[in-house]
Amino acid sequence: MHDAAPFLSDNAAPVHPAVWEAMCAADSADSPYDGDRLSAQLDERFSDLFGRECAGLWTATGTSANCLALATMCPPHGGVICHEEAHIEVDEGGAPGFYLHGAKLMLAKGEHAKLSPESIAALIDPIRDDVHQVQPHAIALTQASEYGCTYNESELASLRAFADERGLGIHMDGARFANAAAFLGGDARAAARHAARGVDSLAFGFIKNGAMSAEAIVLFDPEQAALVRYRRKRAGHLQCKGRYLAAQILAMLEDDLWLANAAHANAAAREVAGGCGERLLHPVEANELFVALSPAERETLREQGFAFYDWGAHAARFVAAWDTRQEDATALGKAIAGL
Amino acid sequence: MHDAAPFLSDNAAPVHPAVWEAMCAADSADSPYDGDRLSAQLDERFSDLFGRECAGLWTATGTSANCLALATMCPPHGGVICHEEAHIEVDEGGAPGFYLHGAKLMLAKGEHAKLSPESIAALIDPIRDDVHQVQPHAIALTQASEYGCTYNESELASLRAFADERGLGIHMDGARFANAAAFLGGDARAAARHAARGVDSLAFGFIKNGAMSAEAIVLFDPEQAALVRYRRKRAGHLQCKGRYLAAQILAMLEDDLWLANAAHANAAAREVAGGCGERLLHPVEANELFVALSPAERETLREQGFAFYDWGAHAARFVAAWDTRQEDATALGKAIAGL
Amino acid sequence: MHDAAPFLSDNAAPVHPAVWEAMCAADSADSPYDGDRLSAQLDERFSDLFGRECAGLWTATGTSANCLALATMCPPHGGVICHEEAHIEVDEGGAPGFYLHGAKLMLAKGEHAKLSPESIAALIDPIRDDVHQVQPHAIALTQASEYGCTYNESELASLRAFADERGLGIHMDGARFANAAAFLGGDARAAARHAARGVDSLAFGFIKNGAMSAEAIVLFDPEQAALVRYRRKRAGHLQCKGRYLAAQILAMLEDDLWLANAAHANAAAREVAGGCGERLLHPVEANELFVALSPAERETLREQGFAFYDWGAHAARFVAAWDTRQEDATALGKAIAGL
Amino acid sequence: MHDAAPFLSDNAAPVHPAVWEAMCAADSADSPYDGDRLSAQLDERFSDLFGRECAGLWTATGTSANCLALATMCPPHGGVICHEEAHIEVDEGGAPGFYLHGAKLMLAKGEHAKLSPESIAALIDPIRDDVHQVQPHAIALTQASEYGCTYNESELASLRAFADERGLGIHMDGARFANAAAFLGGDARAAARHAARGVDSLAFGFIKNGAMSAEAIVLFDPEQAALVRYRRKRAGHLQCKGRYLAAQILAMLEDDLWLANAAHANAAAREVAGGCGERLLHPVEANELFVALSPAERETLREQGFAFYDWGAHAARFVAAWDTRQEDATALGKAIAGL
Repeated sequence: MHDAAPFLSDNAAPVHPAVWEAMCAADSADSPYDGDRLSAQLDERFSDLFGRECAGLWTATGTSANCLALATMCPPHGGVICHEEAHIEVDEGGAPGFYLHGAKLMLAKGEHAKLSPESIAALIDPIRDDVHQVQPHAIALTQASEYGCTYNESELASLRAFADERGLGIHMDGARFANAAAFLGGDARAAARHAARGVDSLAFGFIKNGAMSAEAIVLFDPEQAALVRYRRKRAGHLQCKGRYLAAQILAMLEDDLWLANAAHANAAAREVAGGCGERLLHPVEANELFVALSPAERETLREQGFAFYDWGAHAARFVAAWDTRQEDATALGKAIAGL
Repeated sequence: MHDAAPFLSDNAAPVHPAVWEAMCAADSADSPYDGDRLSAQLDERFSDLFGRECAGLWTATGTSANCLALATMCPPHGGVICHEEAHIEVDEGGAPGFYLHGAKLMLAKGEHAKLSPESIAALIDPIRDDVHQVQPHAIALTQASEYGCTYNESELASLRAFADERGLGIHMDGARFANAAAFLGGDARAAARHAARGVDSLAFGFIKNGAMSAEAIVLFDPEQAALVRYRRKRAGHLQCKGRYLAAQILAMLEDDLWLANAAHANAAAREVAGGCGERLLHPVEANELFVALSPAERETLREQGFAFYDWGAHAARFVAAWDTRQEDATALGKAIAGL
Repeated sequence: MHDAAPFLSDNAAPVHPAVWEAMCAADSADSPYDGDRLSAQLDERFSDLFGRECAGLWTATGTSANCLALATMCPPHGGVICHEEAHIEVDEGGAPGFYLHGAKLMLAKGEHAKLSPESIAALIDPIRDDVHQVQPHAIALTQASEYGCTYNESELASLRAFADERGLGIHMDGARFANAAAFLGGDARAAARHAARGVDSLAFGFIKNGAMSAEAIVLFDPEQAALVRYRRKRAGHLQCKGRYLAAQILAMLEDDLWLANAAHANAAAREVAGGCGERLLHPVEANELFVALSPAERETLREQGFAFYDWGAHAARFVAAWDTRQEDATALGKAIAGL
Repeated sequence: MHDAAPFLSDNAAPVHPAVWEAMCAADSADSPYDGDRLSAQLDERFSDLFGRECAGLWTATGTSANCLALATMCPPHGGVICHEEAHIEVDEGGAPGFYLHGAKLMLAKGEHAKLSPESIAALIDPIRDDVHQVQPHAIALTQASEYGCTYNESELASLRAFADERGLGIHMDGARFANAAAFLGGDARAAARHAARGVDSLAFGFIKNGAMSAEAIVLFDPEQAALVRYRRKRAGHLQCKGRYLAAQILAMLEDDLWLANAAHANAAAREVAGGCGERLLHPVEANELFVALSPAERETLREQGFAFYDWGAHAARFVAAWDTRQEDATALGKAIAGL
């Protein structure tokens, strides 16, 4: 295998050549911060992709993208509903508490780490409408979910209807948005629009999908962009050579590279899934697999050179990336099938 | 001129070829975040440079570097003393208030935007030692200062003595630390040690000096590193492909590139200064010049292709960068002399 | 009944005559804030009561008492372990998020709303020791618990041992500390010491027990008092006529009024409990009863003039107070028995 | 003198008999928090007093009143303009930074600690409209000012016009609002309306004027009341026996006691002023006097039994209160005249 740790994670994969190229092409002085010619194109490019007017801002991490977007919809004394296994709850070091000034994450349940109107209602219906209890202001979905599952258009539509009824905003953590969109299908515009249907903001992830250090905050209410710009600076995320981040995003959007890379990773995951049979703990709808494996079985796989994280005592997580080689995926599928 | 905006600022200059090279060399998968082989070298490299044990952490911006360091020395109910024209007060969008959870910047005066024990005492001596008044916990110096002036070893020593007497920590905003070190002189180790004498933490700037997106937080009490690591993650500044940031810093440290680049920029600034005579508002000790110029004179210079920011109604700021061409500096100096 | 809403809550009961008297006696000018002669006595009085040196500070609410104490043991990026039904999680409007600057409440389970080393270990053992996950820094116990149950000395001792092993502080929310102490038994000193065994701080509640507007923050590490004093002022809880709060607390401590009032309320609750039989959902160890009652049964009781809160669909909560009349308790017990 | 420290401050004066009476009258159980019959009257009573619809909420301190009101008009990334000697800047322990989540106080100058459109413009006109600089969102006036001076209707009107032009809210710190109103003249309604002309919120102080522990937050946009209610709870300022605070405020409003008390204090201050001549550093428009006095002169006065704070090295501050005796004021005036 060309990679020391195939299937360990997509978050440490190399940078795609087209992204490198775009960064190098940005290497003459331009206006600092986001005043450069490349950053200026983002609003239009995302508006075109999503088919509705939106603002697109770069930031260096998914954590900051999620938190900056959430801060547009939840005041410090409010709450954000998310799945109890959501990344913002489990793995962002308390960043939402920092960016939202102490606002509360309200934890709902749901299969495959997905939320539904029913699971959210079960959480918030008991909340008394008084000042003693934190009131929900927003929902944070993850597309694809922590377990690599996707929300389809109809699920998103019913979440939107529910949110409207309850006066809640919807943010989408799209660290693997591209993988979800590729699964939902269609050309780039169709896939993007389906996958983000009805949300107010999207943290559109590029780093796991071939970029180096640029995610996009997409705000479907462009009036929120000014707020996010102030907050981004205040959080120390306004890089002075921002053109290198814009270049990455533009390269990923160019010729729909984002979708092609994600489709590649998804295909590799499906290839592996072919060998997993009943071992699969969740449908494989993106580029992640959660596979029931005993400690001994995991040991065997590791001896064969495969890398992955344990997922509790009885399972493992495998992640395919934009650069996963077909032969590695085939080999892993076979290895699991042969256990 | 090869650059559309020479002398406008160093913060949008291109990336140095050696930095590009190091980033490209980092382009195979490695452990994510700061678990990679490059990030692991930073503590040792900075300890070697500064001659005392320290921790070195990357972050993408000077704003986050300053604020993460300051959070180690000032609680939310405390205050940080800085010059009234300091970047953290004037130009960081309120980031210290965010990162320090509402701590207060306490504004001292001082010529050339420099602090002294006397100016700090004048600020804090009247503060009653009671709970009604915010108490100072730290001093933030800027090396080189907002006006391109440096603190020499003796000045730093007396600030340290004063701080110890008052129980205050010292942080150094070193966005242009390299330029200050180059001015103070000596080889890289001597220059670095002189320029950071006695401080508890340093935001060591590389971006204005040839890097793309990596500054270093240098903590001379390495026990604070764990705290900063938690806070960095919480602030969304722990990039998953952190190796590209470490690579930039290591490239800048390699063969003392940081010092060479800064010396180049300083020399260009001095070249310009040669033509400024009495017009200089501050000593030129780093890579910035503040020059008294009437509106008409500025207009004349702009017509000649020079770019710079107005500095109030009667002056302009010129900044030389690592890539400023000698002939441009000479031309600017002559142009000013000829006004 | 002399009260429009007996058994509804103890939090709106009248003020005890001895407290009124003490407040009136404080009605000459004295030094403002906590510089008065009465506030100055608190440290000593609490040290004497608890048999170890401590600091005692007044504040107007249990919410601020809990949060100010917790802020001494948990940094903004850390977590506080509490029961999932704890008041600080459910009913304080997100105050811990505010006072602790975004720190996270980590929710453990446990019968009768009590924590144990086992339930806490089940929560925190899976937390990876890395910056992506919020690390626990403190435990918040409630004495008596949300369900009116108490921690005895042995339970507190094992929690202390566990906390020491894990490097955690322990705060005790003692909104009904007096009721717990009265249950645990002994004279005032013995009861207080047993009920607060091993904790680092205690929010000692007086308001539900006969005071008007004064709770005490008791810090068993008196060095934390300075920190709490700064934070109390910063939170706007340093009242300028603080002597009226100190007077309330001193009156409650005088002749062990706090214990007598609590014993009275506990006795009334036990009297009611006598009529509840199998309906009791939790042991009655303080002044609260949680009783299984159908909607129709609750309606019947309300028609008889009893007031109480519904507790979900199938139960009700009754609370006795320092002024609950014996005959009302007897009547309620009989009424429930007769359903 | 009947008071150990006449003229030291009004903030530690006794409680007015009518306030005591009203508190005692509130001493039967009622709904907790602000659900009681007394708290329910506040909106109407203040609306009637000020002649425009408003909400009135109690809180225990001026610090919390100011901060809760300011939080309705300034986001965490914004700034609040106040005088450089304003109480919120100098003497509230950093509370605005806490309540406003790191928002910045922006310090303007002005004679007699008063702001004007000109002094504010001088402060904010240089602020660039970009994300690097904190943008102003609100103005905080103090009525009467830190130097006991008042804003008349015409001054308030021009500040309102200026604020509207710049899109700023106006909050009024009225710790001594009653004294200002009494100076501006007219009956209670006229005085209140003149003194609060054009402001969006008012921290209406009662504690220095005869109450024990209740200030009012008056919100002239009643829609902000819900926000303040959530924030008040979150800050631990929602007392469960809130009726005792409402009772204090209602007693102060009854028969215009607030205005009578203030007029009494103002008269006492004027009586003293009669003896001060050229020594007065500021016009005496409320109940405070700032008097040039040498150390020796201050010593002399203290030997005669007068109490006061030094005000720097060459002056002293005297404050009259609602209970200052006429003979004490006369005596102090004579004593100063006789120096």
